[in-house]
Amino acid sequence: MEQDARQLNGIFQAIGDHTRRAVIGQLEGGPASVSDLAKPFDMALPSFMQHIRLLEESGWIRTRKVGRVRVCAIEGQPFTLVDRWLSEQRALWEGRTDRLQQFVETINVEETQE
Amino acid sequence: MEQDARQLNGIFQAIGDHTRRAVIGQLEGGPASVSDLAKPFDMALPSFMQHIRLLEESGWIRTRKVGRVRVCAIEGQPFTLVDRWLSEQRALWEGRTDRLQQFVETINVEETQE
Repeated sequence: MEQDARQLNGIFQAIGDHTRRAVIGQLEGGPASVSDLAKPFDMALPSFMQHIRLLEESGWIRTRKVGRVRVCAIEGQPFTLVDRWLSEQRALWEGRTDRLQQFVETINVEETQE
Repeated sequence: MEQDARQLNGIFQAIGDHTRRAVIGQLEGGPASVSDLAKPFDMALPSFMQHIRLLEESGWIRTRKVGRVRVCAIEGQPFTLVDRWLSEQRALWEGRTDRLQQFVETINVEETQE
């Protein structure tokens, strides 16, 4: 499997979880510490850290240590890749509906000529 | 967890796999039988059927039996939901950059007034 497909797998798997989507939503507002991000969730810190790690490994966020605090920030690239995938599907779909449209028009022309 | 969140989990988990994304891509061209869909993949039919089932359960496709053949067709709703999620993230992000812009403008005004 090529690199792009593997990357896209990770990106989609990461947002297939409500907590991780919520963290992404929080980080749209600006960088935040792990402990601040964890506050809205009724979850033990080690479990929450697993979500953070998965978001980092898949490329959705970057984290860095500032003194004793780990700060997280959102990355833009996954949004671009999801958007691109969606556009590709739309193009395939429109290609199909264009062909359907041509088919319908051909039928109409044939009916008119009869 | 609410119904919407659970549905979105399933939708994203389903496309977190290269084979399933490829099946969706094939079905954009129009409905197809499971055996035709399976052809490009070097995979035993039971394994392929698991992918088909997951796509159906998550709402990406619908299937129906036509005689002895199972025919699959794409569903539009998941695309709409992925698109909506992406737009919501974009709105959050733009809200952030708007606030940053206001902050920068405030600083500039204060500097000019000094």
